[in-house]
Amino acid sequence: MTSLRRSPEKIRRPLGFSFSAVAAGIKVSGRPDLALVEAANGAAAAALFTKNRVVAAPIEVGRASLLSTGGRVRAVVVNSGNANCATGRQGIHACEQVCREAGNLLGASPAEIFPSSTGIIGVQLPAEKICAKLPELVMLSARSSSDRGVLAFTHAIMTTDTRPKIASARFQAASKRVTVLGIAKGAGMIHPQLATMLVYLFTDVGASPRELQPLLRVACDDSLNCLSIDGDTSTNDTVLLLASGASGARVKDISTRKKLSVALAAVCQSLAEQIVSDGEGVRHVIRLFVEQARSREEALMVARTIAHSMLVKTAWAGADPNWGRILAAVGRCGVSIDPSRVQIFIGRQKVCRNGVACAFNERQAHRNLAQPVCDVRVELGRGRHSLRFLTTDLTAEYVRINADYST
Amino acid sequence: MTSLRRSPEKIRRPLGFSFSAVAAGIKVSGRPDLALVEAANGAAAAALFTKNRVVAAPIEVGRASLLSTGGRVRAVVVNSGNANCATGRQGIHACEQVCREAGNLLGASPAEIFPSSTGIIGVQLPAEKICAKLPELVMLSARSSSDRGVLAFTHAIMTTDTRPKIASARFQAASKRVTVLGIAKGAGMIHPQLATMLVYLFTDVGASPRELQPLLRVACDDSLNCLSIDGDTSTNDTVLLLASGASGARVKDISTRKKLSVALAAVCQSLAEQIVSDGEGVRHVIRLFVEQARSREEALMVARTIAHSMLVKTAWAGADPNWGRILAAVGRCGVSIDPSRVQIFIGRQKVCRNGVACAFNERQAHRNLAQPVCDVRVELGRGRHSLRFLTTDLTAEYVRINADYST
Repeated sequence: MTSLRRSPEKIRRPLGFSFSAVAAGIKVSGRPDLALVEAANGAAAAALFTKNRVVAAPIEVGRASLLSTGGRVRAVVVNSGNANCATGRQGIHACEQVCREAGNLLGASPAEIFPSSTGIIGVQLPAEKICAKLPELVMLSARSSSDRGVLAFTHAIMTTDTRPKIASARFQAASKRVTVLGIAKGAGMIHPQLATMLVYLFTDVGASPRELQPLLRVACDDSLNCLSIDGDTSTNDTVLLLASGASGARVKDISTRKKLSVALAAVCQSLAEQIVSDGEGVRHVIRLFVEQARSREEALMVARTIAHSMLVKTAWAGADPNWGRILAAVGRCGVSIDPSRVQIFIGRQKVCRNGVACAFNERQAHRNLAQPVCDVRVELGRGRHSLRFLTTDLTAEYVRINADYST
Repeated sequence: MTSLRRSPEKIRRPLGFSFSAVAAGIKVSGRPDLALVEAANGAAAAALFTKNRVVAAPIEVGRASLLSTGGRVRAVVVNSGNANCATGRQGIHACEQVCREAGNLLGASPAEIFPSSTGIIGVQLPAEKICAKLPELVMLSARSSSDRGVLAFTHAIMTTDTRPKIASARFQAASKRVTVLGIAKGAGMIHPQLATMLVYLFTDVGASPRELQPLLRVACDDSLNCLSIDGDTSTNDTVLLLASGASGARVKDISTRKKLSVALAAVCQSLAEQIVSDGEGVRHVIRLFVEQARSREEALMVARTIAHSMLVKTAWAGADPNWGRILAAVGRCGVSIDPSRVQIFIGRQKVCRNGVACAFNERQAHRNLAQPVCDVRVELGRGRHSLRFLTTDLTAEYVRINADYST
């Protein structure tokens, strides 16, 4: 159960990528805030972006670039400390300038440079600060062949994250060894719709962009799309999958494709768990199982309404087995549920039978909820669809982090 | 601006109603928790109930009673400390038992007794405690002809409310004087959908139930249906309007009906403001104006998404003029907005022009948000519909109140 809190596993690096990071002075703290991944021989790319109608400049630029190159990427440039969102034409130009400069240094076209930004909304991106540091970043990446570059990259993309988020998997495809590495940042404004904050997945399998896209979508559906910290979908959410082909294995081979699917799903699930357990102010992670729904969409509506209820989340903060708030959330979620068919479980105990109070060991339920991770299960009695959704409590610490303001 | 924080106005009592309250031992604190309104000669009734699919026993019983009597009510019996929700058949029987006993005491049919409950979900209603106190309650109400009964009633229906919520209005209808009195409880689990927690409206105008219902709906639409504290719609929400006819004026008269509409709207708006400003842990009330929407529904979607965003609400708690979070919430609300047509104002200042940062006096915006009440305006640039929505910040105190649990 407490596996969600594990520290990052051993890093397995796929062939064909190098990583680096520097401090460019975007973060007031002076911490590293600019990171690069270089695919020396290029990579095929697939991507998912936020469904928010307000999107940051790098999302607009990155989406257009992938279209124009047909899904080829030479490098990813990420900055933290500034989201480059709600920055208008000037923000687009700043993003394009960074891509142009990076392309020049790497001998690539600007469209082959994939940009990402995370941080405050509504402040212009200091492109000149970034461009001034690009030569150093490129030089470092060229020399990096160890885990150090990966760790530096991972730390540089963090904002209010308290720890880096890395997961990896490896499998044999006939005589070839294929590796999948995932790196993410999370923390706040986390309620992805098809993507989560910034997630980068690297593999050395050979694949076309068209082959990668469905693999990425399936891997994300049950992991990065089934989590919520605060219900706020970011303007910058991006999941990018790059495949270098350097392992020699190719997804055209059905057995390799199946193994890759499993590896991608495992890496995405691990990153999802790491993101949720490191959410702002989070003390308790809840694994919410919604079962017996008529459809996956219906299960998702129920899960999201429970996961976004301030009353449910505050009860969880107090390890309070107040199932009435869960039932009330189910009742208002828009699904025509029949309360008399609803069962609710905390840990392994049934706490609500057919929509009505039933006898249970309240102290045990409180103890379960007081753990770092607790399972809550809701059966709707309507059908055969179910899903697992990762969410969190809502603590005074979350409020403190997000209400912190001084003029 | 600070009018929202005003103390309850002078109480104007309509003819034909008497009020009383006692402590029946439902609340652990021993405070008054059982209240009665009696209409000695009966009253015509209109009601709105929660849209939650999970409804409390008194909602089921009250709705059926109004149907069977054709909208006639002799008395309202309200208890606080127990919601009688998720209590199954036993809860329905307990509610019916209370109505039967009260009917016996008042010489009325059980269906003429309108029941309400508010408090914890999932605990059986102690009907015997309530029935034991009904004779005292009826005796007190028969003797009460002062404001004392009204105040006692108002206090007895409170749960985590810190102050009573009363509003009244009076007008002349030819030679007759008509009074409207409104009493409410609020505090938490407040995001009404057609009704809010418990709101009782009394008037001495003469009207049929059929005449009252549309008047009630219109009065609530722009007030009690346009507010949210935490987005959680209760299982017990009820708005009940009773008309005794004792003033001699009748709504058949068009001029009287118009004046009644105005009076009802004013009383509901005042109660809405009182409910929001007394929300759990609330330090700042936000009057959110959503303008230039294509429809009222669209404006409501935008308002609710902003009002339920934990990131927006925590920024308001810190008086942080972080308009990027508001823009991000507008972007994910499901309306196909064009960010480049969105304007955002805090107080009288424009803080976001065409979806992009614009120069503004940040210190002034912070000062505005630090007031007990602040206006925030969002223009969508899509159409001509607008609405006003009352909401609040999200403070550590809200979390403390709702996470408070001890085994």
